[in-house]
Amino acid sequence: MEDFHDYLEARRAEIEAALVAALPAPPECPASVASAMRYSVTAGGKRLRPILCLASAEAVGGDRTLAMPAACALEFIHTYSLIHDDLPAMDNDTMRRGRPTLHVVAGEGIAILAGDGLLTEAFALMAREPATADLVLAARKLRVIGVVAAAAGATGMVGGQALDLSASRPDRTDRPALLLAGEDLRMMHARKTGALIRAAAVAGVIMGGADDRFVQSIDAAAAELGLAFQIIDDVLDVEGVSASLGKTAGKDAAAGKATYAALYGIDGARRMATACLDRADGILREAGLGGTRLSEIGRWIVNRSH
Amino acid sequence: MEDFHDYLEARRAEIEAALVAALPAPPECPASVASAMRYSVTAGGKRLRPILCLASAEAVGGDRTLAMPAACALEFIHTYSLIHDDLPAMDNDTMRRGRPTLHVVAGEGIAILAGDGLLTEAFALMAREPATADLVLAARKLRVIGVVAAAAGATGMVGGQALDLSASRPDRTDRPALLLAGEDLRMMHARKTGALIRAAAVAGVIMGGADDRFVQSIDAAAAELGLAFQIIDDVLDVEGVSASLGKTAGKDAAAGKATYAALYGIDGARRMATACLDRADGILREAGLGGTRLSEIGRWIVNRSH
Repeated sequence: MEDFHDYLEARRAEIEAALVAALPAPPECPASVASAMRYSVTAGGKRLRPILCLASAEAVGGDRTLAMPAACALEFIHTYSLIHDDLPAMDNDTMRRGRPTLHVVAGEGIAILAGDGLLTEAFALMAREPATADLVLAARKLRVIGVVAAAAGATGMVGGQALDLSASRPDRTDRPALLLAGEDLRMMHARKTGALIRAAAVAGVIMGGADDRFVQSIDAAAAELGLAFQIIDDVLDVEGVSASLGKTAGKDAAAGKATYAALYGIDGARRMATACLDRADGILREAGLGGTRLSEIGRWIVNRSH
Repeated sequence: MEDFHDYLEARRAEIEAALVAALPAPPECPASVASAMRYSVTAGGKRLRPILCLASAEAVGGDRTLAMPAACALEFIHTYSLIHDDLPAMDNDTMRRGRPTLHVVAGEGIAILAGDGLLTEAFALMAREPATADLVLAARKLRVIGVVAAAAGATGMVGGQALDLSASRPDRTDRPALLLAGEDLRMMHARKTGALIRAAAVAGVIMGGADDRFVQSIDAAAAELGLAFQIIDDVLDVEGVSASLGKTAGKDAAAGKATYAALYGIDGARRMATACLDRADGILREAGLGGTRLSEIGRWIVNRSH
């Protein structure tokens, strides 16, 4: 099997090309919002969600090209969520992926619209591609749209952001102070980041044509990976420097946010993340998916430096 | 046939009930964002898009209950667009449908999230309902999702709002002045309001199971109704008083926005709207849909006082 680093680079290159090809452009779309959408989508990033989506399709023996539209849609949704989260009314962040945030360069109005446009385009893309007259494949696409929408909406990611917004912000006296404890923190992140990561994996399995047994196993494994991802994010926020993170480091601590690092310490948090990986590996092995790229993706999530 | 006023009231009651039933609620969804979504969705409004969606399904002999999820989804999308348009970074409006706008009562952060939540829920709802194992009906649902997403996104409504945002705003010196002329104004509104109104009618026809000939005819008629709607909106903004409009009257003129009323005068604009209706009626008659509720909906659009 190809070296994991090469595998990751190859997948990323495919994904970058597909993302750009899927973006709306003039004359179908006004230049102001088209260039704003492109600015944020092409700002780089790990592309974890699309990589996980394609890897899940391949893990169950499916054709990853069938999963590529959903993979791109998930990255559009992730990108829109970052644009809106960075707004002054939300996290008020000015740096993201090593560049000024969209509202800094394009204004708040266009940033809001570019986010709205990316969210909507995600669904347009999943409905449109892969183009098919095959009713069975059409039914898979419809199912994936339902999974992704449920994960991205008020019952999922948007709900998680709402919980985060109402949590403690000593710098914002207009909001009620509510310091999240361990279980609340887990619930908030399960919505805010976990739901979309799970949807990425599940979308890949469904587009790959696997049966429901695999959907459930990969969903459960992806939930562990999502939690590990968030724990490591918190650790890197404490350990990291802004340059390698591409965003402002130490921001969560400065904002008085509850984090895994603050609650359990750096070492404790890293042990929790490793335990998540072990559980994910166990679930995958039990489902007969032990030798796939999914375990390597898990280790990459935990060992990354940004 | 039932009196049109009674028909409208009956449909509105069905739609109001379906909208509330389709909203996510605790414990699946945090209370803050759930109550914000409900506040805006239940603020009233004409319910033009869902009424047009159901009427289109019935006009082609379809079962309107199959079109109800799409009808509600379109109203969710319309409502989200109003929430985001009203934000300080956009139109900065404080009154809507006779009540303070959402960001005034819940804060900008929750208003942004409630809009995001409604947009996402629209797609979740169309994917989920009507629940079916029938692959033909599933394919209709998928097609409707594609139509609605294309109409709502950067190539449609979001793009129209971006054009509007970059048009003349003498009160905002941070934006380039660009006064829209007649054709530009039509193009901007074709995206900003026309696209979603057309999608409402087309979604009804598709869920009603009609063939593509009807899709094209009703799409063309709905484009005329959408233009008439916007022209009358401009007229009412000049003629109206805030109390009956439920929003700030005279705002477009005060903001130096190009409007049909400003470009063609009140009487000229009203004549244009009537000409739209005549064209719509001609298209509908030619398609054998002359005696349906769609023509009455057109007259209601033009004769309304708010």
